[in-house]
Amino acid sequence: METIRSTRALQARADKLRQQGRRIGLVPTMGALHEGHLSLVDAARARADFVVVSIYVNPTQFNGAADLEAYPRTVEADLAACEAHGVDAVFLPSDEDLYPEGAETWVESTEISKPLEGASRPGHFRGVATVVSKLFLAAKPHVACFGEKDYQQLAVLKRMTRDLGFDIDVVGVPTVREADGLALSSRNVRLTPEARTEAVVVSRALDAAASAVAAGEFRVEALQHLVQTELDKSVLGELDYAEFRCAESLAPVTDVLDRPTLLALAVQFPSKDGDPVRLIDNRVLETSPS
Amino acid sequence: METIRSTRALQARADKLRQQGRRIGLVPTMGALHEGHLSLVDAARARADFVVVSIYVNPTQFNGAADLEAYPRTVEADLAACEAHGVDAVFLPSDEDLYPEGAETWVESTEISKPLEGASRPGHFRGVATVVSKLFLAAKPHVACFGEKDYQQLAVLKRMTRDLGFDIDVVGVPTVREADGLALSSRNVRLTPEARTEAVVVSRALDAAASAVAAGEFRVEALQHLVQTELDKSVLGELDYAEFRCAESLAPVTDVLDRPTLLALAVQFPSKDGDPVRLIDNRVLETSPS
Repeated sequence: METIRSTRALQARADKLRQQGRRIGLVPTMGALHEGHLSLVDAARARADFVVVSIYVNPTQFNGAADLEAYPRTVEADLAACEAHGVDAVFLPSDEDLYPEGAETWVESTEISKPLEGASRPGHFRGVATVVSKLFLAAKPHVACFGEKDYQQLAVLKRMTRDLGFDIDVVGVPTVREADGLALSSRNVRLTPEARTEAVVVSRALDAAASAVAAGEFRVEALQHLVQTELDKSVLGELDYAEFRCAESLAPVTDVLDRPTLLALAVQFPSKDGDPVRLIDNRVLETSPS
Repeated sequence: METIRSTRALQARADKLRQQGRRIGLVPTMGALHEGHLSLVDAARARADFVVVSIYVNPTQFNGAADLEAYPRTVEADLAACEAHGVDAVFLPSDEDLYPEGAETWVESTEISKPLEGASRPGHFRGVATVVSKLFLAAKPHVACFGEKDYQQLAVLKRMTRDLGFDIDVVGVPTVREADGLALSSRNVRLTPEARTEAVVVSRALDAAASAVAAGEFRVEALQHLVQTELDKSVLGELDYAEFRCAESLAPVTDVLDRPTLLALAVQFPSKDGDPVRLIDNRVLETSPS
């Protein structure tokens, strides 16, 4: 497995691979790799023959120094996991490489970045779009894989890719879950044991809504009530948002579900380190029989 | 000469050229080609073996519908000039191609876009950076050439290219001038005959400042006075700005010139069509003997 530490070196490698007619797959990560990330590697492997995993904790997508500091960093274990999973190259850029002195250039998809996480975390998706643009330009991939757990992130990056004309296939990969349903997240390790137990309510709330929709309940208010009932089974969790949005545009869906609708949840739980952990999860509610 | 009308088709062509080991040079233009543009083609030819000229009047960099409407469009003559000048391919994208429905993604270098043209034309450089990003992603060039006449545009695009990590060499090409010194511009054809005659004061003001600096005058106030004296020789011209800025960062230079300093001028003149023509020109004043 190759370890590449600069944009210039990765670009030179990508040029060579492309001249050889090889297909490059990119999996952008912030490290602290878990099975969810490895499923992204599998998805990239299925679509490309040279898989690059980037590991970079991007400061511009964090809203507070505390969350940035608290973000888990496990580079040695990450490298071992990549090696064991057959990754071809890991890209480990420095801050100076991705944000040279005086860096002041931003990429932003303005509308799709506004609701949900964008409302809770001002500037978050500007940071995401900017760093992913840099990673795209560095790795020159044919395909890039992102988890559906971060649904809005995926929607923002698809929009950005289409709007700017990146010649890259952006692929969403289904969320990987613990046995009890909790979506895998690098932040889960920070949960207190009690919070980890109660965090199951997040996926159960999504299940409850999906079951109700499958049974013909399309009224947003009724679904909202079901979600709240499930979330209320946790005493530690504190709801940030539970929203119904058009799965394509993220425009609000009010009244009744009349098209594929994203149910997006964000709930805060207590952490071992004192700063609360914000967990997000989502489900696309299909309104017609699949 | 090839004519290519979609981003997808240009990307496919660029991929093939790159696989053949050929070097691609891009000259982004808004058409209405003159000798200045052709000097950009020459500069690209000297650095690449496949030269693409893009012709696209980018709506997002205009501030008013009037200026956008008044911008000269001479596509047939442009194609003939490109053909005669040995251009390999002309890229003629549609609005829908570069700005698909719901396009909302912007690229912006925030600080370097603020003074000078950025102050006079809010959003102008966001439009420029966005469209040039799209053209870069479409043509996948090794090198791209821009005129030094639009000095701040060149500075913005160099900053954007560095910050985002575009693997492209951005080259500035010296301004081409009429016999009397007027910088070539697609807007010059709109000047009334009287305005065309008087417009020579712009380059003369730059000459006066450069001569004074060469003779040891480094005081901004004295140079400003010299510039004003030259501009006052035109009764039709109306000064928008005359500014001294660090040639690298565009930070203001006050008091004395202590480093290479951009003198940037913008002057409005009457046009045949009624809407005034804004002419810009500049000179980098070298403070040490070259």
